[in-house]
Amino acid sequence: MEASAEAELVGVWPVEVQWGDCDAAGIIFYPTYFRWFDSATWALFARAGYGVREQLRDQRAMPLVGAECTFLAPARPGDRCEVRSRIARWGEKSFTVAHEVLREDGVTLARGSETRVWGRHVSGPGSPMKGEPVGEELKARFRRAG
Amino acid sequence: MEASAEAELVGVWPVEVQWGDCDAAGIIFYPTYFRWFDSATWALFARAGYGVREQLRDQRAMPLVGAECTFLAPARPGDRCEVRSRIARWGEKSFTVAHEVLREDGVTLARGSETRVWGRHVSGPGSPMKGEPVGEELKARFRRAG
Amino acid sequence: MEASAEAELVGVWPVEVQWGDCDAAGIIFYPTYFRWFDSATWALFARAGYGVREQLRDQRAMPLVGAECTFLAPARPGDRCEVRSRIARWGEKSFTVAHEVLREDGVTLARGSETRVWGRHVSGPGSPMKGEPVGEELKARFRRAG
Amino acid sequence: MEASAEAELVGVWPVEVQWGDCDAAGIIFYPTYFRWFDSATWALFARAGYGVREQLRDQRAMPLVGAECTFLAPARPGDRCEVRSRIARWGEKSFTVAHEVLREDGVTLARGSETRVWGRHVSGPGSPMKGEPVGEELKARFRRAG
Repeated sequence: MEASAEAELVGVWPVEVQWGDCDAAGIIFYPTYFRWFDSATWALFARAGYGVREQLRDQRAMPLVGAECTFLAPARPGDRCEVRSRIARWGEKSFTVAHEVLREDGVTLARGSETRVWGRHVSGPGSPMKGEPVGEELKARFRRAG
Repeated sequence: MEASAEAELVGVWPVEVQWGDCDAAGIIFYPTYFRWFDSATWALFARAGYGVREQLRDQRAMPLVGAECTFLAPARPGDRCEVRSRIARWGEKSFTVAHEVLREDGVTLARGSETRVWGRHVSGPGSPMKGEPVGEELKARFRRAG
Repeated sequence: MEASAEAELVGVWPVEVQWGDCDAAGIIFYPTYFRWFDSATWALFARAGYGVREQLRDQRAMPLVGAECTFLAPARPGDRCEVRSRIARWGEKSFTVAHEVLREDGVTLARGSETRVWGRHVSGPGSPMKGEPVGEELKARFRRAG
Repeated sequence: MEASAEAELVGVWPVEVQWGDCDAAGIIFYPTYFRWFDSATWALFARAGYGVREQLRDQRAMPLVGAECTFLAPARPGDRCEVRSRIARWGEKSFTVAHEVLREDGVTLARGSETRVWGRHVSGPGSPMKGEPVGEELKARFRRAG
């Protein structure tokens, strides 16, 4: 038996906790993590060769249907982190991205996910979006030689 | 048998979708909902008589352990909404706030929740936080005569 | 001699300092004021009868060419404020909005301004913008009976 | 005559325009630049050996008294930029940081500045701040061998 020659693409998005990302308790203001998740998803797609510029050109959009996060340890100003992201599930017209936030000392600060529709604007940016089937071409972008 | 004289406190936090709350797809940038949830929780506590000023005075904090949201319909610049919030669960040292985002035409845009620790800074703002038991006094604030 | 029957329209945009608007020093994170200025300008235009929905319909845009603010006193979580805004200058294809941030006790927290181009997307939202002459019709919206 | 052995420290803070940094016009939402300026100032101080962790430890703060920016060209999602920052002026108890935002193709997108008080919390984070004289020790951190 042969091992699979395919391995899933993992995005690694580096980020540092900024002063303005924190609140009056001196720790990260939690919606910041979801801003990071959004950025990390775009970075994952860029790594897969289909980033924000390509998607804007093609009038693509990836609106959310759900998001969740579990917060495990507080982050403070100056903490250097990375968000590791991968496609956790492909649906018919949607997909789920799993995210993990790791501090540079290896501590996991947060774990979460986003579920997004694979969509397209019907008549240019700003116009309504319509879901489209996730095709094999898209899925193939997230596989890579092991 | 008598009906309960107690009903749970419901917070109603009005908010309008701002230009800067949206993204290049022309709809709300989803972390905005979590910013709203945070504000709505503070507003709920203010309505219960224990708002942000009282909590800062008492070196209180309500750090998150989890948050999730389901997005049902897109929001656009200028949409007038309200976030309705209530305590959905009291734990020993934590609690869950349920939120619902309604547009003025009655459409539900999003539903979500936050789970928070009931905490206190051990030595002033910015210092580490420690969870404390949710007492009866706190719970009583969120009941009201029916 | 008669007093002018015209007085300039003044926008009044109420806002409360949110927990997440503050930073680890426990006071407002200063870019928040510029978010408020943007919202206050949209509110001023809405009051003049040409708000965000009308502008999106007409593929209008008001991109910035400059912004500045002087910070006079710190704002803290829970402070109730209002931003008072008026058109301070009409240029040929641009205009300047003056903003003042007042706390409910009457203290002025900040004063600033934005200079914006009066523009239109050449081919739908997301497409490049082109400045257009500020017409009399627009200016008239910001005058009102004294 | 000898050239000065001292040259001023220049901070270089790399940043990419995120999806959520933009608004419904498809370009950067302008308060984002001020968030960047704040981050770039902290990065400059970190490079000078006195970053956010050291300042929090010493109960330091650098509250703003003014900020301004001129916007020269629009930034779009995915644009890679850097913010170049230097101390433009030392006052008695304040200082001014000049910022320039350059896109990777060399185009200057924005130029601005922040004026900040050199302050300290009188009794821990969250407590009031008091301005302190900018000492020679601080200034020396921003000189470097030419």
